[in-house]
Amino acid sequence: MNEIPTNASNSIILRLRLQNLPGILASVVAEIGRVGGNIGAIDIVRYEGDFVVRDVTVETSGTEQAAEVAEKLTALNGVTVEHVSDRVFVMHLGGKIEVTSKSPLKTRDDLSMAYTPGVARVCQAIHDDVSKAYNLTIKKNTVAIVSDGTAVLGMGDIGPEAAMPVMEGKAMLFKEFGGVDGFPICLDTKDTEEIIKVVKAIAPGFGGINLEDISAPRCFEIEQRLINELDIPVFHDDQHGTAVVMIAGLINALKVVDKSPSDIKAVVAGVGAAGTACTRMMRDLGINNIIGLDRTGILHKGRTDLNSSKQAYCDISNPEDITGGMTEAIAGADLFVGLSGPNILTVEHLKTMAADPIVFAMSNPTPEIMPELAWPHVAVMATGRSDYPNQLNNVLCFPGLFRGVLDARAKNITEAIKMAAARAIAETIPDEEVSADYIIPSVFDKNVARNVAEAVNQACVEGR
Amino acid sequence: MNEIPTNASNSIILRLRLQNLPGILASVVAEIGRVGGNIGAIDIVRYEGDFVVRDVTVETSGTEQAAEVAEKLTALNGVTVEHVSDRVFVMHLGGKIEVTSKSPLKTRDDLSMAYTPGVARVCQAIHDDVSKAYNLTIKKNTVAIVSDGTAVLGMGDIGPEAAMPVMEGKAMLFKEFGGVDGFPICLDTKDTEEIIKVVKAIAPGFGGINLEDISAPRCFEIEQRLINELDIPVFHDDQHGTAVVMIAGLINALKVVDKSPSDIKAVVAGVGAAGTACTRMMRDLGINNIIGLDRTGILHKGRTDLNSSKQAYCDISNPEDITGGMTEAIAGADLFVGLSGPNILTVEHLKTMAADPIVFAMSNPTPEIMPELAWPHVAVMATGRSDYPNQLNNVLCFPGLFRGVLDARAKNITEAIKMAAARAIAETIPDEEVSADYIIPSVFDKNVARNVAEAVNQACVEGR
Repeated sequence: MNEIPTNASNSIILRLRLQNLPGILASVVAEIGRVGGNIGAIDIVRYEGDFVVRDVTVETSGTEQAAEVAEKLTALNGVTVEHVSDRVFVMHLGGKIEVTSKSPLKTRDDLSMAYTPGVARVCQAIHDDVSKAYNLTIKKNTVAIVSDGTAVLGMGDIGPEAAMPVMEGKAMLFKEFGGVDGFPICLDTKDTEEIIKVVKAIAPGFGGINLEDISAPRCFEIEQRLINELDIPVFHDDQHGTAVVMIAGLINALKVVDKSPSDIKAVVAGVGAAGTACTRMMRDLGINNIIGLDRTGILHKGRTDLNSSKQAYCDISNPEDITGGMTEAIAGADLFVGLSGPNILTVEHLKTMAADPIVFAMSNPTPEIMPELAWPHVAVMATGRSDYPNQLNNVLCFPGLFRGVLDARAKNITEAIKMAAARAIAETIPDEEVSADYIIPSVFDKNVARNVAEAVNQACVEGR
Repeated sequence: MNEIPTNASNSIILRLRLQNLPGILASVVAEIGRVGGNIGAIDIVRYEGDFVVRDVTVETSGTEQAAEVAEKLTALNGVTVEHVSDRVFVMHLGGKIEVTSKSPLKTRDDLSMAYTPGVARVCQAIHDDVSKAYNLTIKKNTVAIVSDGTAVLGMGDIGPEAAMPVMEGKAMLFKEFGGVDGFPICLDTKDTEEIIKVVKAIAPGFGGINLEDISAPRCFEIEQRLINELDIPVFHDDQHGTAVVMIAGLINALKVVDKSPSDIKAVVAGVGAAGTACTRMMRDLGINNIIGLDRTGILHKGRTDLNSSKQAYCDISNPEDITGGMTEAIAGADLFVGLSGPNILTVEHLKTMAADPIVFAMSNPTPEIMPELAWPHVAVMATGRSDYPNQLNNVLCFPGLFRGVLDARAKNITEAIKMAAARAIAETIPDEEVSADYIIPSVFDKNVARNVAEAVNQACVEGR
């Protein structure tokens, strides 16, 4: 069984030494196809007498299929597999970002202006008026991407070193989509107080703090304390970035089904960092009837097993205080928002929802229900995946959002700013183009970050 | 009186609106010359009817002369000074460094390899074997440039924001001369324990720590504790970078005067961070008779006003336990090393030194004695300044030194490594070219960093 599609994230480069005879390359291509690999570039490296060395790039469905491709090619006549390299690992060699100078440093004059003695006058100017750090240092364009590595992608607590590739990738996204200089700071501590202390200590050189992949419930206190104690914006992307993009998708999905937020019933599966933030923004959007679920079932005031953040969740959800599990929650719901785990939602569940249901199955990489199963029973379907329509991806939010707050020198990212960002993302698609398959713009739509930055900047100005 | 030379670090750009008549530009040029400014580029910005707008770049001796230039030009017929901009401040606008991606992020495939889902396999690989962080993240090429802003240049405790321009400049030097990615971390705390905690917490993403401009005596404990408690190299540049470069100059200066380290008497004025480190390396080089001085006078065992680091200094200096001040210390000395303050050494002092004395007057920007005064009385003279021969500049050391230890994945920067760096700097000048005016290579000699990196790498290998 091989239902997983091939993908560039699982592509390999095979260095093959082939007998230079008709039919040999054809047998290679045919064999790769039989295994299910998707052939990309085929390059010639060099000729060696009667042999030709080629690099063949193959997208696979994963490491198992990649191994199978190599194994099957090894068995072919006239073919030697010299080397198999994993393209993702190759691109990560030495890391993905670097620190570069904005101006040359080639002459004594360059040196005397960028460093001593000239730099002393700039230092003195900032010492005399610390707000000048925004103009005369990297502060106004630089964001610390801070993680303790405890909740990285779907992998959980993998540690600060293993979190670095994600944070480096985030820095790339910050630069590419927002023109923001993000720098990864991965912390060798999981202690709430110590994380707060460290982030406060390193803050002077940064214009903003992007918290990332810090597990709940610590992430709530860390974020709130830093918001209170720092004078630069602090934003836990897993909470609010997810919520902003979800709300953007929801705004357009509601247009498709012609429903109003105040009229709908919503179910949120997974009330961790992201689920809680989504719920709060859904309420800000006007949704009153929201039912939250954790692994045990519906969150209601009668439960005695809830930590303080889940108790607080009961105050903003479940107005009729219903009890039970998914079956009880989903009956008659207009909207399902999944931030939990794979395959917890069934077709049977969908059949009990209200007319024209909206399903946002955002668990990654495997959604709460696969789109193929859901499509016949829903009006709008969105996931976190790039290989289905309506990808709800945080990169639609954070680069433009930070661009906006940095430009405005905002000290906080308010609820109004987040809602402005969500509306800007939604409105990037003209109303007449919004459809069941197009509720959210592409991550490569350059208008998104610009629109978000402008809307955020405007909201900052209005908030003063 | 205007004895200070003009310098690019004090250059201004005057935007002038000039009547387009013969003689007007000449009058401008003549007037700038009269004030003492040094004219660089003269550019035409645009024509406006009978007028021409020009940008005139002028190097001045400082802000006072710059103001005088503008004032005098304003008084000229047919000349309007539209704007005066300070070139150093212009180059600092928005900061001097940025974070850039090493590979493009333009397609969905790029995204799926650099970020989710592809990045997850890389994270997993590092989680399985944390040493892979060196190959698969920026760690192996990245150094944190850490300061608390308490001892910045000659300005003292100016705070973390005001220290940023120096640290950004340092990052530029790291990249330009060593290919190292340095990133500034300026700390909002002066507490020794807290600094240690913060640096340890942020260490996972870095391959080395460059401590910078942290005041004594806290810098000693901070460095030593971090060396003990981290598994990446930690280097306080103000101490050891200064010492390495000073020793490099000394190795060649001793060739010029044909003396041996074990035969000479040395005086070190200023026994703070740099002076102490210089003294230790001088002893490692074989100098036994070293006299240290602070503001009070010679450090000797009888003094009751010494803090613990100065008491420790007595154990490695002043073997005959002499007392007194500069006059008593300098008599018969072969070498003076100044890391103290301006103009504390006089011609009378020089006259009492041994034959062919060596004077390293490293106080910046004004040395312990000006070269013009010293030259008639010394065999070799060096300063920290770029406008005299023999500039002892830390940039000769730290980029190549970190390049070497990062490449070797050294866990510590040992005494042997520092001495190897010093010898590599010295030996960059062939023996037959070493002379009284050429004991230390130019900061722009690209061979220096390469030679230092190779020698350091070799010393790391030998130290295993």
